[in-house]
Amino acid sequence: MIPVLDHGYVSLVDTMGTDESIIEAARMSTNRGFEGWVKDARLLEYLYRNQHSTPFEMCELAIEVQAPLFVIREWQRHRTFSYNEASARYAKMPDVHYVPNKNRMVKQSSSNHQGSSSEPLRVDMAEDFMNGIKREQEASYSRYETMLEYGLVREVARVNTPVSRYSKMRVKGNLRNWLHFLNLRLRDNAQYEIRVFAEAVASIIREKWPRTYALFLEYDLHGVRLSKTEAEAWKRSKE
Amino acid sequence: MIPVLDHGYVSLVDTMGTDESIIEAARMSTNRGFEGWVKDARLLEYLYRNQHSTPFEMCELAIEVQAPLFVIREWQRHRTFSYNEASARYAKMPDVHYVPNKNRMVKQSSSNHQGSSSEPLRVDMAEDFMNGIKREQEASYSRYETMLEYGLVREVARVNTPVSRYSKMRVKGNLRNWLHFLNLRLRDNAQYEIRVFAEAVASIIREKWPRTYALFLEYDLHGVRLSKTEAEAWKRSKE
Amino acid sequence: MIPVLDHGYVSLVDTMGTDESIIEAARMSTNRGFEGWVKDARLLEYLYRNQHSTPFEMCELAIEVQAPLFVIREWQRHRTFSYNEASARYAKMPDVHYVPNKNRMVKQSSSNHQGSSSEPLRVDMAEDFMNGIKREQEASYSRYETMLEYGLVREVARVNTPVSRYSKMRVKGNLRNWLHFLNLRLRDNAQYEIRVFAEAVASIIREKWPRTYALFLEYDLHGVRLSKTEAEAWKRSKE
Amino acid sequence: MIPVLDHGYVSLVDTMGTDESIIEAARMSTNRGFEGWVKDARLLEYLYRNQHSTPFEMCELAIEVQAPLFVIREWQRHRTFSYNEASARYAKMPDVHYVPNKNRMVKQSSSNHQGSSSEPLRVDMAEDFMNGIKREQEASYSRYETMLEYGLVREVARVNTPVSRYSKMRVKGNLRNWLHFLNLRLRDNAQYEIRVFAEAVASIIREKWPRTYALFLEYDLHGVRLSKTEAEAWKRSKE
Repeated sequence: MIPVLDHGYVSLVDTMGTDESIIEAARMSTNRGFEGWVKDARLLEYLYRNQHSTPFEMCELAIEVQAPLFVIREWQRHRTFSYNEASARYAKMPDVHYVPNKNRMVKQSSSNHQGSSSEPLRVDMAEDFMNGIKREQEASYSRYETMLEYGLVREVARVNTPVSRYSKMRVKGNLRNWLHFLNLRLRDNAQYEIRVFAEAVASIIREKWPRTYALFLEYDLHGVRLSKTEAEAWKRSKE
Repeated sequence: MIPVLDHGYVSLVDTMGTDESIIEAARMSTNRGFEGWVKDARLLEYLYRNQHSTPFEMCELAIEVQAPLFVIREWQRHRTFSYNEASARYAKMPDVHYVPNKNRMVKQSSSNHQGSSSEPLRVDMAEDFMNGIKREQEASYSRYETMLEYGLVREVARVNTPVSRYSKMRVKGNLRNWLHFLNLRLRDNAQYEIRVFAEAVASIIREKWPRTYALFLEYDLHGVRLSKTEAEAWKRSKE
Repeated sequence: MIPVLDHGYVSLVDTMGTDESIIEAARMSTNRGFEGWVKDARLLEYLYRNQHSTPFEMCELAIEVQAPLFVIREWQRHRTFSYNEASARYAKMPDVHYVPNKNRMVKQSSSNHQGSSSEPLRVDMAEDFMNGIKREQEASYSRYETMLEYGLVREVARVNTPVSRYSKMRVKGNLRNWLHFLNLRLRDNAQYEIRVFAEAVASIIREKWPRTYALFLEYDLHGVRLSKTEAEAWKRSKE
Repeated sequence: MIPVLDHGYVSLVDTMGTDESIIEAARMSTNRGFEGWVKDARLLEYLYRNQHSTPFEMCELAIEVQAPLFVIREWQRHRTFSYNEASARYAKMPDVHYVPNKNRMVKQSSSNHQGSSSEPLRVDMAEDFMNGIKREQEASYSRYETMLEYGLVREVARVNTPVSRYSKMRVKGNLRNWLHFLNLRLRDNAQYEIRVFAEAVASIIREKWPRTYALFLEYDLHGVRLSKTEAEAWKRSKE
């Protein structure tokens, strides 16, 4: 169980397949199997580099995640995963909420409409806001409990649930889809709160599929995509 | 634009294909085209009844939806649609919230863990709760605005957004997928607040694809699925 | 390895999850785990009957298949599986072909445009056709080899490959998708040659997920779907 | 109708959405609409470059294709499209076959396991092979017709269908998926016979979505993907 943020976690449920399984699946095209990494490391790199993606679909990872609702909302935009999540209609939600810490009390970036600058708020204001967020969560949960105690149906009592409340889900997908998730969610422009969950997932994948993960770093996360114009300049620079 | 709940709506963006397109696609298998409804009404029914589903994928519907976040969250569990939604990282969220009306102030069902009973709360309590929900939304939005005014990055200022806040999205999918959505969300055990959005979608589909919609009512929404045991009793009852 | 037809097979590569995993995933909605089949058999049936499908996505099955190309073509119309198949561009195809046996030498059904009647061809004609099919395969493979020997590129030398030639692939998908495959391909109106492969898959699923497979038989394969009109007659018959 | 190869074609069936629709969908995130290309050309490029892919899913293209079976087989490996194809179980297949012309009578590449070299076969041998392919198709079709005439069920009579036989299908998908198809099938390492179909599709997309198509050429088809090592060399070359 890998702790994430103040009350979240990622834990491994199950996996299927290894780096070797990818080679075996790819070898269906030539009728042979895995022949050892001395030879097959090059094949794995060839597959990855040239986006022969189907062999990477032969591996699966299932995890359990506890995360704030706004993180779960972003996560579930990835439509190739299978999800099973706690339901606020079936059960009372837990009194567990995310309070951003002072490192997150920063100003809006002026250049990047999407994200944070590195400029912190004034310390006293930051503390006021953090305390305010926490008090609001407590008050909201207390009203939620009151409404439940008086018998109001759960599906209505939850309408003011703040998206900072933690929920739980199982997420399952194939390795190709997980690498796509990481490629979007490990980047700087991903919101910090989902990035730390992606880092926990990455640590599991690095351990289970070390060779594939190294290729992901080389070609995707730390690689670069050039436009035609840039690609031509790049070719000239090598002449 | 079809109004739904207190501040929501469904509006038509675009469609592709008609009932006739389904026949034309199905006729690829025999190399002929649409031959008129006198003859082809039977073919459409045959396709629907026997779950020859790919011809129904040839039609598309794109809509715009304004709905509370908890409705949007349920909607986006349908992974075959394409979504584009307002982002609380890019823009300030609107001060528009869903307040359940007094018909929704009912007790939890004791038999159905998932849903509502028909037993109302005491009137004064119901009004208290409705007012409380409204005041909580106002207070939460006011704190949100204050944090934004003092420069806090939008993606953090929104952490306590209540799931009653309205958001907007475009949703696009093929007719097969829309009928699957309706088949789950028009039913009694769907939560009322998403069911009324499904009804708005249904009214669009009924108008654009009237023959297919009639088959959906006949075979899915008002049809029944029997187990083997029941199916055998059914066969005997007809003898 | 389960032999199928004259030269085909289905063999198990890997699985993930059990009947218990489905319960555990479903219990995410109420925050509990597997509690024993005495209690949870009812939950599994409830999930299956009410088409709560996502828990069944938590299990995976990967197999290897050797089948004639026309069977592989039908199989690959199922778009939710992952496939890795032998490629006629990368490697020479094998000299292995499907010859239908005399039970398959039957007349076209006059009532069912899609399929076979039970009326056999005259015995001598049937044998002539079977021999003709075999000789054509031999001659075609011999021309293929000749063209390859003279250096013609593999991707062109294969243009006259008969769809009776065997190819190999790995197929992987989740349990929900496999049951959908079985529901279409185990039925009488499926072509015999893919039905026998579906039966081999079914035998694997029955062994690995016995409780889920029993529900599939009860509610899908041997169950029945009634129209509204029929459903009303069914309700009256029970009064 | 765009003719392709000796007897194939691509024809437009229907489209939904334009370059403007992509902007409108993307603007859901900020609550505004299309504001004119002077301003929005930059937004479209930003979306494309940064792989904000969902707005490109808002456009659809449906086409009809007549192509040899081996091309259709490759095409149908793209699992995000909807397909409706002629069925050899429902109807007699047409006597229309693909014969590769002399430009395709080339040797296997020694460096590229997947493809063709530019080295032609000897002219007389090439003609022999082309005639042999044609005669084999004629003989095979004649045997197919004989078996049908004597009443053999269609689904068995077709087992020796050569993959050079033409079939027809409708294909429908969203713009994001079509560009992915083009990105794989317009490249040099795609087999010539599917590449010419991809070129016909590309000509339709260039006309209907000219701005998006230009970005596809700039960033994908003629762009380049660098590994981390190469990306670092590229950065140094610009210093």
